[in-house]
Amino acid sequence: MQIFETIAELRGFLREARCQGQSIGLVPTMGALHEGHLSLMRTAAAENDIVVASIFVNPTQFGPQEDLAAYPRNLEADARLAAQAGVTAVFHPSVEEMYKPGNATWVEVVGSLTESLCGRTRPGHFRGVTTVVSRLFNIIQPDRAYFGQKDAQQVQVLKRMTQDLCFDIQLRVLPIVRESDGLAMSSRNAYLSAAERQAALVLSRSLAEARRMVETGERDTAMLEATVAAFIRQEPLAVIDYVELVHPDDLKRRERLETISLLAIAVRIGKTRLIDNTLLEVPNVLNSI
Amino acid sequence: MQIFETIAELRGFLREARCQGQSIGLVPTMGALHEGHLSLMRTAAAENDIVVASIFVNPTQFGPQEDLAAYPRNLEADARLAAQAGVTAVFHPSVEEMYKPGNATWVEVVGSLTESLCGRTRPGHFRGVTTVVSRLFNIIQPDRAYFGQKDAQQVQVLKRMTQDLCFDIQLRVLPIVRESDGLAMSSRNAYLSAAERQAALVLSRSLAEARRMVETGERDTAMLEATVAAFIRQEPLAVIDYVELVHPDDLKRRERLETISLLAIAVRIGKTRLIDNTLLEVPNVLNSI
Repeated sequence: MQIFETIAELRGFLREARCQGQSIGLVPTMGALHEGHLSLMRTAAAENDIVVASIFVNPTQFGPQEDLAAYPRNLEADARLAAQAGVTAVFHPSVEEMYKPGNATWVEVVGSLTESLCGRTRPGHFRGVTTVVSRLFNIIQPDRAYFGQKDAQQVQVLKRMTQDLCFDIQLRVLPIVRESDGLAMSSRNAYLSAAERQAALVLSRSLAEARRMVETGERDTAMLEATVAAFIRQEPLAVIDYVELVHPDDLKRRERLETISLLAIAVRIGKTRLIDNTLLEVPNVLNSI
Repeated sequence: MQIFETIAELRGFLREARCQGQSIGLVPTMGALHEGHLSLMRTAAAENDIVVASIFVNPTQFGPQEDLAAYPRNLEADARLAAQAGVTAVFHPSVEEMYKPGNATWVEVVGSLTESLCGRTRPGHFRGVTTVVSRLFNIIQPDRAYFGQKDAQQVQVLKRMTQDLCFDIQLRVLPIVRESDGLAMSSRNAYLSAAERQAALVLSRSLAEARRMVETGERDTAMLEATVAAFIRQEPLAVIDYVELVHPDDLKRRERLETISLLAIAVRIGKTRLIDNTLLEVPNVLNSI
């Protein structure tokens, strides 16, 4: 596995691979790799001749009060894990390589996709994501790019961007990977103290609670949201950012559950903001008769 | 020459050409082709194996009070001219093909490049330009793209976008093409009545006046701008939008002429808004000794 720090060198490497007819998969990450990232990389390795994993803590997707400086960075460990997962090339640019002097260009998805959920408490976050991912797409020109369903809103925003800007790239979305006790894998889990780690289980458990309610017939959005919120509030270390049940495509709220909905939550455990989500499917009554 | 109406068909055609190692040049236009466009196409044909000319009157770069509906459209004549100029494929998508339902993505260059000059009187114009050009770049993935110096600000904005978003595309900028009496070629010249056509000569003549002043030693920006503006005001049919002397790279105003400056003007002749520009070069005294 090779590590590239510059766009020019990575492009040289990929040009050669492309000329030989090799397919290219891209796994964009901010490093601090965990099993969620590695599942993306393994799938990318199975589906492509070449896998590029980018490791870049992108400053433009962090708010001024957020954890840019503290975000965990460990290139050596990440490179070892990526190699084991089948990655061909790690792209690890400096901030100056990705944002050259005089940089003034933003790529932005507007409307409900970026204004809802995390968009409300993290203004500018998705603009930073689409801006950096569009650059990665242009640098690497992959056939396929891999993202985790953990970042459900990010996935919808990037699907929109990819379609709107006519990128000839297939987006592959893989399931959330969880610890054995249910906590969704996240690089930010590393911030949690032992007590907070225990408290953080309230996220996945509250989602399970919602799934049980839907199975027993609950269809009212407000009731489901209120019950999940009440469940989370039982945990003293948890502070709710949002609990929202939305349509998985447009991320807009509906009064009642339709065929399928996305229950998305963001919760602060101490100073750490965690997100989780689940799809809630209304059982098809006709099929079950 | 082939005409493509859909992204998928054009991509199929280009994929084949690219596989055979052919280079691709792109000339983005809004149609109503004139000698300015044709000079871009001929150069593109000389420098590339394949030349794609896009003909698309892009609604997102027109303001609500502007001439989107009236803008001249004549595909048949344009296709004939493009073929004669060496174009391999015309891309003529519908608005719905370029902006699919649910479209919500903008590409925007912010700051002085888009806020100055035309950016002041045409808010959103350059956002529309960068949004459509980034799509054309992704659809066609050209090796080179051709633009006219007539749209000097557009050129700077697109250079910025291309660099910032890491498009692997060379921008080629060709000189303004003028009628024999000096009027810069523009599709909007077709709007002019005979009297307006005569009045429109004030644009290129005012630029010549500025060049004369610089040759005779004038270096003061305000003085040059005031003289050009006074020259234009002598023409009763002309209403000045702006007369500005800026640095050609950042489009910011300087107090005095440096080595090279861009004198850019926008003038309404009747209902028609025309632009023109010239580079003003300070003679290198050391060389002339």
